[in-house]
Amino acid sequence: MGIRAGGKPIIVMDNEYASRLGIHSSDRVKITREKRHIIAIANVANDFPKKTLGIYEEVQEKLKVQAGEMVEVLPAERPESLGHIREKIFGQRLRPEEIKKIILDVVERHLSDVELASFVTSLYIRGTSMDEVEALTKAMVETGKTLDFGKTPILDKHSIGGVPGDKTTILVVPIVAAAGYTIPKTSSRAITSPAGTADRVEVLCPVDLTGEEMKNVVAKTNACLAWGGALDLAPADDLLIQVEYPLSIDPLLLPSIMSKKKAIGANCIVVDIPTGRGAKIKTVGEAQDLAKDFIEIGERLNMKVQCGVTFGEQPIGYAIGPALEAREALMALMGKGPVDLVNKATSLAGLLFEMMGVKNGIQKAQKILKSGKAEQKLREIIAAQGGDPNIQPEDIKVGKEVAQVRAKETGTIRWINNRNVAQIARAAGAPKTKGAGVLLHKKLGDKVKKGEVLFEIYSESAQKLDSAFLLSQSLDSIGVTENFGEKMLVDRIPTKEVVHEKHFILER
Amino acid sequence: MGIRAGGKPIIVMDNEYASRLGIHSSDRVKITREKRHIIAIANVANDFPKKTLGIYEEVQEKLKVQAGEMVEVLPAERPESLGHIREKIFGQRLRPEEIKKIILDVVERHLSDVELASFVTSLYIRGTSMDEVEALTKAMVETGKTLDFGKTPILDKHSIGGVPGDKTTILVVPIVAAAGYTIPKTSSRAITSPAGTADRVEVLCPVDLTGEEMKNVVAKTNACLAWGGALDLAPADDLLIQVEYPLSIDPLLLPSIMSKKKAIGANCIVVDIPTGRGAKIKTVGEAQDLAKDFIEIGERLNMKVQCGVTFGEQPIGYAIGPALEAREALMALMGKGPVDLVNKATSLAGLLFEMMGVKNGIQKAQKILKSGKAEQKLREIIAAQGGDPNIQPEDIKVGKEVAQVRAKETGTIRWINNRNVAQIARAAGAPKTKGAGVLLHKKLGDKVKKGEVLFEIYSESAQKLDSAFLLSQSLDSIGVTENFGEKMLVDRIPTKEVVHEKHFILER
Repeated sequence: MGIRAGGKPIIVMDNEYASRLGIHSSDRVKITREKRHIIAIANVANDFPKKTLGIYEEVQEKLKVQAGEMVEVLPAERPESLGHIREKIFGQRLRPEEIKKIILDVVERHLSDVELASFVTSLYIRGTSMDEVEALTKAMVETGKTLDFGKTPILDKHSIGGVPGDKTTILVVPIVAAAGYTIPKTSSRAITSPAGTADRVEVLCPVDLTGEEMKNVVAKTNACLAWGGALDLAPADDLLIQVEYPLSIDPLLLPSIMSKKKAIGANCIVVDIPTGRGAKIKTVGEAQDLAKDFIEIGERLNMKVQCGVTFGEQPIGYAIGPALEAREALMALMGKGPVDLVNKATSLAGLLFEMMGVKNGIQKAQKILKSGKAEQKLREIIAAQGGDPNIQPEDIKVGKEVAQVRAKETGTIRWINNRNVAQIARAAGAPKTKGAGVLLHKKLGDKVKKGEVLFEIYSESAQKLDSAFLLSQSLDSIGVTENFGEKMLVDRIPTKEVVHEKHFILER
Repeated sequence: MGIRAGGKPIIVMDNEYASRLGIHSSDRVKITREKRHIIAIANVANDFPKKTLGIYEEVQEKLKVQAGEMVEVLPAERPESLGHIREKIFGQRLRPEEIKKIILDVVERHLSDVELASFVTSLYIRGTSMDEVEALTKAMVETGKTLDFGKTPILDKHSIGGVPGDKTTILVVPIVAAAGYTIPKTSSRAITSPAGTADRVEVLCPVDLTGEEMKNVVAKTNACLAWGGALDLAPADDLLIQVEYPLSIDPLLLPSIMSKKKAIGANCIVVDIPTGRGAKIKTVGEAQDLAKDFIEIGERLNMKVQCGVTFGEQPIGYAIGPALEAREALMALMGKGPVDLVNKATSLAGLLFEMMGVKNGIQKAQKILKSGKAEQKLREIIAAQGGDPNIQPEDIKVGKEVAQVRAKETGTIRWINNRNVAQIARAAGAPKTKGAGVLLHKKLGDKVKKGEVLFEIYSESAQKLDSAFLLSQSLDSIGVTENFGEKMLVDRIPTKEVVHEKHFILER
């Protein structure tokens, strides 16, 4: 029928014929054609040709059937994995084989949205043991593709996300590769944020690499900055995210991250845990608990993991939005970067060096950055991925429509609301419009005078700029006071804020 | 497009146009046409006419739009109720207004399957307080139709279900009505069982009444035996059942039952709680807890509730399957009923009489039954609902294909497995084929000789009879031993049994 349903395999069949087979609308059916088969969801039509199946593209892709060919249609049995999902609902721990069956059925699309949602909700409420996390991670790896770069060690860096403007990866990868280590980095695009690393790098060069292309880039440069979405690494994770996202819950953080790392053969990983009121993780205590889990699951999977708990109370650097951030990252590699971005990148790269036995890893990272070798390495990567290696910061196009948001009083910047800044950048068009975003002029601790510019909003469309500016006027994004005692009322309940906005950060 | 999706409002739109609106496959969109609007789920097609919306019948019915007319399409905001569902995921108690918003959005179809499944799972795991049960019940009533019979009191009877062959309602309703009380009974069709009361009564007369027809029947006879499914009473319950069923969890038992009762104005209700190893409720202790909840929620809703905990370790009477059961019920009203059925029906009717102030209610019920007045009343109801009031047991057609299952040893019947008996009846074609089912020849405590008939299987199709008979040979349905000490091994783990069968009883 030439219709897609977001990955869901849907077929349409005649009412009378369906009823003879005991199939109701939304029931699962098994369609077999020679040796191929698929479990699909039936939609029932009143005026549909008898004994004819209308198939959506997802079904066509799996069955490779031509119009007019015969297929067999049967009501589908309940998958065995549903019993294991129910065990989780009841609070039982699942055995590795049971988890494997569930994840296999996720990937094979044998489980409905209802069943997936119930599984994810149960995992969230009942929690997961380390045995379960290990089994989930392994099952996610085993049900997807893996990449072997024929080298060891494979280094990697990951941020659990949540802080806007975090372009650290674009610095860490070339620093590490310039030191001679192999770091085949895959990143995601933004889901709920104004930019993912893949969106940022795409401003500099193509990121949509196949596994083979990625291997070639890594063979040439020791590194890559690729989009992970097309590589089919741990595909179960991508399918479960589709259910986690509307529910805004994230019970699979650990297996999700670790499976993607395992699938590219990483065995030495630094995990960045940004911490602070406006980040995913609010306190250092929580960050330490999570870090211990990362380290333990790493040990179970033969991966050396160390975590960096980083300051996450304000955006990293000044730029938020794909092009603005790519420009800032390139400038930082050229020696003109904001201090927090440079410090964070060299700290994380330094941790990786120290895991490799280097003493004073942070100093080594700083030295490589200062020497220009990291910039040179990024340009090599850009070239290998098909971009222009001579790209200059001023070549990067940012939004032509600009609005300035000014301080309403004189004082010191006391807080910056990550969520509100991200929302304004998204309202301006990020991440879809690469040039859209927010450019901060002031950060925590800076002095500001009434009427001075706090930040600029960039957009490609005057209409979007207007609505982003309007939003900036209704949201308290940056707090300015003369002295700390002045604004004691932090929140009110019920809140004055817009209620329907999305607070949730799914990016990992 | 003339296609139905089981109640889900689906629209199809062109890829390019969808992307311009920021709509992905499976996203929710708001379609507005003059003053009507609907929240629908978008499927995206590659070769679909530009700026054209393909609409499923569910959408057409709501919007009443003609081909060629203009509609407005916008990405839909997340409903506010989703925030309350998330609160339940987090373990918070919900306030009545919050529950009202959720139930309203359930009925308006603003919540996706993912969100409904997560809600139901959270209710199951986190539990519901009595305040929440009350609010859920009221919200379910308020978002549906109600029926006013202009009389008081309105009596009612309900079984939480789970025992095969439970045709008690067909006796209780005419006994109570024959005593002059009003009892407008609505029942459901089978979902997981071989027969629901509506399926059984339909053998005697039409049950598919409108609200008006139901009122007329009650005005004439003080009673009815109608199918509740077409009356739009507490429709939220029907929608939530569609999600509970695949998950086989039932966290909404109390609000589901009580909302249907409240919607018909019942204020004096007896609730039957069948108890035993093969029933929904396994122990008398559990039954007492549930009974207390029923009584408390009744008080909160101004409904007098009493519960009868009944013996549920074997089927009621001998017949299982719509026609076999209708025949047995009719015979029982004519004075030739099995002792357990008669005892259960007069006990429950008696409880209702005692709630009305009658002393020795059970005796009164027995007297009415014996007098033939209850039979007379059933015939009045059959006539009022459009059936033949002179129907005789021998007029009722049962399956023409019959197989006999015989005892493999001599001894006494020690147990009967409700679930297995029900499964065999369903394999024979019940409830779809009215004449299909199982007719027991022996019940608990009966003596049996090797080779004697334990039960018969009835079917309309030789093929179904075969597969039901085969199933009866692989399932242990009836346990026969000389003395109790002989079969000490009750179960083994892992089990030998077929794994994929459905254990769950959703019928309420």
